[in-house]
Amino acid sequence: MDRNEPLVSVDPLGKAWPLPDASTMDERFAYLATLAEKHRALGQEIVVVQGLGFVGAAVAAALAGSRDPQGNGHFFVIGLDLPSAVGWWKICWINQGRNPIQSPDPQFSQLVSAYGGTSLHASADPRIMGLADVVIIDVPLDVEDRTDEEIRLVLEPFKQAVRTVGQHMRVDSLVVVETTVPAGTTEKIVQPILVEERATRGIQETPLLAHAFERVMPGPQHISSINQFWRSFAGIDEVSSQRARAFLNRFVDTDQWPLTEMDDPAANELTKLLENSYRAANIALIHEWALLAERMGLNLFQVVQNIRVRQGTHDNIRAPGFGVGGYCLTKDALLAQWGADNLYPQGPPLQMTLDGLRINYLMPLHTLDLLLELIPKEHIADKKVVLCGVAYLPNVGDTRNSPAHLFVEALEKLGVRPTIHDPVVHHWPENPTYPISSDLETCLQDADAVVLAVGHRDYGDLYDTLSALSSKPAIVDGQNIVTDADAETLHQQGFALIGVGKGHWRKRGYDKP
Amino acid sequence: MDRNEPLVSVDPLGKAWPLPDASTMDERFAYLATLAEKHRALGQEIVVVQGLGFVGAAVAAALAGSRDPQGNGHFFVIGLDLPSAVGWWKICWINQGRNPIQSPDPQFSQLVSAYGGTSLHASADPRIMGLADVVIIDVPLDVEDRTDEEIRLVLEPFKQAVRTVGQHMRVDSLVVVETTVPAGTTEKIVQPILVEERATRGIQETPLLAHAFERVMPGPQHISSINQFWRSFAGIDEVSSQRARAFLNRFVDTDQWPLTEMDDPAANELTKLLENSYRAANIALIHEWALLAERMGLNLFQVVQNIRVRQGTHDNIRAPGFGVGGYCLTKDALLAQWGADNLYPQGPPLQMTLDGLRINYLMPLHTLDLLLELIPKEHIADKKVVLCGVAYLPNVGDTRNSPAHLFVEALEKLGVRPTIHDPVVHHWPENPTYPISSDLETCLQDADAVVLAVGHRDYGDLYDTLSALSSKPAIVDGQNIVTDADAETLHQQGFALIGVGKGHWRKRGYDKP
Repeated sequence: MDRNEPLVSVDPLGKAWPLPDASTMDERFAYLATLAEKHRALGQEIVVVQGLGFVGAAVAAALAGSRDPQGNGHFFVIGLDLPSAVGWWKICWINQGRNPIQSPDPQFSQLVSAYGGTSLHASADPRIMGLADVVIIDVPLDVEDRTDEEIRLVLEPFKQAVRTVGQHMRVDSLVVVETTVPAGTTEKIVQPILVEERATRGIQETPLLAHAFERVMPGPQHISSINQFWRSFAGIDEVSSQRARAFLNRFVDTDQWPLTEMDDPAANELTKLLENSYRAANIALIHEWALLAERMGLNLFQVVQNIRVRQGTHDNIRAPGFGVGGYCLTKDALLAQWGADNLYPQGPPLQMTLDGLRINYLMPLHTLDLLLELIPKEHIADKKVVLCGVAYLPNVGDTRNSPAHLFVEALEKLGVRPTIHDPVVHHWPENPTYPISSDLETCLQDADAVVLAVGHRDYGDLYDTLSALSSKPAIVDGQNIVTDADAETLHQQGFALIGVGKGHWRKRGYDKP
Repeated sequence: MDRNEPLVSVDPLGKAWPLPDASTMDERFAYLATLAEKHRALGQEIVVVQGLGFVGAAVAAALAGSRDPQGNGHFFVIGLDLPSAVGWWKICWINQGRNPIQSPDPQFSQLVSAYGGTSLHASADPRIMGLADVVIIDVPLDVEDRTDEEIRLVLEPFKQAVRTVGQHMRVDSLVVVETTVPAGTTEKIVQPILVEERATRGIQETPLLAHAFERVMPGPQHISSINQFWRSFAGIDEVSSQRARAFLNRFVDTDQWPLTEMDDPAANELTKLLENSYRAANIALIHEWALLAERMGLNLFQVVQNIRVRQGTHDNIRAPGFGVGGYCLTKDALLAQWGADNLYPQGPPLQMTLDGLRINYLMPLHTLDLLLELIPKEHIADKKVVLCGVAYLPNVGDTRNSPAHLFVEALEKLGVRPTIHDPVVHHWPENPTYPISSDLETCLQDADAVVLAVGHRDYGDLYDTLSALSSKPAIVDGQNIVTDADAETLHQQGFALIGVGKGHWRKRGYDKP
C-alpha cells in the first residue's frame, strides 16, 4: 500500500471506514471461501466482478439477483475493488446492503439491499479470484487527457488489474473482459499478461478468455440495460466462446435479446467503439448545422423533426444542444485510434471521427458565445450568471466529463463565477469548489443571465419562475427547453432570449429585449 | 433559339424529331388552351410541371393519374421542357404516351401510357404557364464541378426558368418550387424574379409561392415516393401556405403520410439539404472505419450488423462500400454551403459535412488500392480488369455521378481500359466511349481481375460463374457481394480475394492465392 495512502476511506456521508489490516483480510477471505463452497455445492457459479464502479457494481447486483424460474439464484457474487480511500467504503457499503453508486434506477439499490451480505459480497482481497468460476473485468481503461493531440491511455492500472487476475485465477475459470477497450486489447494485452502470470504459477493451459462489452445506460434502465438488452461477445477460442455464451445465457434475457457472437474479440471490441463514435460523430455533425441555422434565422429543431419522420433511414439524426459529456462518447473514438496506432501496423487516422470529438468538446463555448451576444464580454465581469444543469444527461446525477466544465472554466476567464443549480446533482466531483443548489428560485434571484444547459425534467415548467423575475435575466437556452410560445410571451415581457439551434428566435428579434 | 442548336431532337432509339416551328407552336398552344378550359370546366386544376427530368416527368405522371374516389381526375397536367435537342423528343414521347425516363417502377410508364395525350400533355411553349392554376418548378439547380474547392452553381438556367414563369403565369396561380435548392433560394432568388417579371406586366400583387421539395427515390418506388410518402412545404405567406397545403392534399395520401408545414421556405429547403447531408456524412464516417477494420483484420459488416440491433438510436449506421453517386448525396451539402455563403451574412463553414463529401468522392480509389494489392501497379497495364456495375445504386439503371467514373479514370491512368458489365445500365452517358455489356460470362472470359462495384441483384449468385473461370481472376469485392462461405471455397480453388471492409479475409489469407 502506498505510504501516502490514508488509513481510512471516507464515504459520501462523511463516515470514515478504517482500511482492513492483514488479519481482518485473512479472516474475511476464509469466511468468503467457506461461503463460496457452500453456494457452489448448491449448483451456483461463483462470479468475481473486478471493479465496483458505475458498471461493475451494477453488474454484480444484477448477477446476484439473477434467479431461475424456481427462484433459485444462479450466482454467488463477490465484487472486488482496491483497499484504498476511494474503494474501501464501497466494499463496506455493499456488504451492508447499501448501494455505493447513485442511480435513478430504484432496482439497483433494491438488489444491493436484498442480496448484500447473502449472494452479493464485496472484498478488497485479490485472493478471492481463486474462488471464482468466472472473473469479470470491469476496471476502467481511460484516456489521460481527452483534449490532448497525442492519445495516452491510463493503461497501467488496467494491466495491473489483469495481472492480479492471472496471479490468482483458477486454471479453468473464465475471464470476461467487460471494459470498453481498444480493439485488439483482449488478445494482444490481456491474454499475454494472463499467460505470463499463469506460467509463473506453472500453468501452461491457454486461459479461457472472452470480451463481452456492456451497454449500461445511466438512468432508469441502469440494471435492465445489463440483463434485458442486446449483448455480444467473442472468445479467444471455441471453448472460451462456449463458456461465455453459457454464462451470458444464464442472466441475460436472451429469448427477447438474442446474443450476438462475433468472429473474434477485436471485432467485439470495435463494435462498442464504433457504436459510441457513431453517436458522437452525429452529434458533432448536427452542431455545425446548428451554427448555420442560427445564422440563417431557422429553427433547426423543426428541421430535424421533419427529417426524423423517415424512420429506419433518418431517425437517428441528432438534435443540437449544449455539449457532450459522460465516460463513453467523449473517449471511445480515442481508444479506437490508439488501438489502430499501437496494436496494429499502419493504422489509418479516423479523421472525421476525431474532428467530431473535438467539435463536441468545444460545443459549450458556442453557448457561451450566445450568452455574450446578449451581455457583451466587456460588461459580463460583474454579472450574475446562473448555470442550470451540470449533469451530462437529463435527470441523471452524473457529471463525468460534463460540458458544463469547459463552460464554467471559460466563464471564469471572463471574471464570472457562475451560480450553479442542478436538481439531481448535489456535488460536482470534477469542480468541487462550486456549491450546487437545488433551490432554483433562490439561485435566480437578481440574475443577469440564465443558461439552460441540461434538459432536466424539473426545467420543463420554467416559464412561471422566469416570468416572475424582476431582474429580467438574459435567457440562453442550450437545450431546447423554452417553448416558442413561452419565448414569445417572455420576450413581450421584456426578456431577451437566444438559443442553440434557434435561429428563428433571432429572426423574430427575441435576442433584443 | 441558338444558331448552333440542331433542328432535330434525337430520341434514345435513334429517331429524329424535328423541332417545332412557330406556327406549329401556335397551333399546339391553341389546342392545349381549349383543352385546358374544358378540363377546368369539369372542376380540374390545370398544372404545369416545368422540367421533364427524373423528378418532373414522374411528378407530371403521378398528378395526371391522381383521381378522386369516384375515379375523376384531379388535374389536367402539361409538362414543359425546352424545344432543344435534349428536351424536344421527351415532349413528343409523352404526348404519344411513351415514358422518356428509364425507371424500374412499372407504374411510371403505365401512367404515361394511360394518360399521355388525355390528361397528360407536354409542351415546349412557355405560354402554357398562362393556363396553369399551379406551376411546379422541377428545373435542376446543379453545382458546376462537385470537386472544386470553390462552390459554383449552375444558377442561370434555373433563374431563367423562373423568369419565364414570371413572364407568363396568371396573377393568382400558385408557384411551387420542388427543386432542391440552397436554403433561402425561394425567398431570396425566386420571389424577387417573379415580382420583377410580374411588375413589368403591371402586376403588383405578391406572387403565391411555396417550396415543397420532393423525396423521389430512384427504383421501384419512383411514383409512390411522390404520392405515398412524407411531404413537407412552406409558403412565403399564409395564403401561399394554404394553397400549397390544399394542392398537396389532393394528390398525396396524407391520411397515411400527414403533411409537415414548416415555418418558412428556407427551413423547408434546409430540411432536404440536411437530410441528404446526414446520409452522405454517415457513409463517409463508416468509410474511415472500413479502412481501420481492414488493417485490423476485422469484418466491418459484422460489426455494423451488431450495432444496428439498437433500433431507433443506431440503425441508421451505414455499411462500407464502393462509393457514393447520384444527383443528391453528392451535391446537397454544397448547396447548403453556397446558400450560407451567398444568401446570408457570415455563414459558418460546414467543415465535417464537406470533409465527408470529399471522403465519399474519393472512396472508389480505395477499391482501386485493394485491386493493386492483388495485382501490383507495375504489372497491371496489360491486365484484363472487369468492372461489374457502373450504376450508383443496385438494380437501378442510373449512372449520374457514379463512383465508377473516378475508378475508371484512375485505372486508365495505369494503362488499363476496363471491360464493363452492368445488367441494368445499357449506356453510360457520362462515359460514352465505354460499351457496357450485359453478358457477364463473356465479359469474365480470361479476366485477370473482377471488381464488384454495385450490389445488383444479378450479382447475388456469382459463385458458379466465378468458380468456373480458369483464369482465376483476382476478386475485389467493393459491395459485400461474395459471402464468407463462397470466399472460403473460391480461395481453396486458388482465387485471391479482397474486399472493402473485409479485414477478416485478409486475416484468413484470402488475399494470397
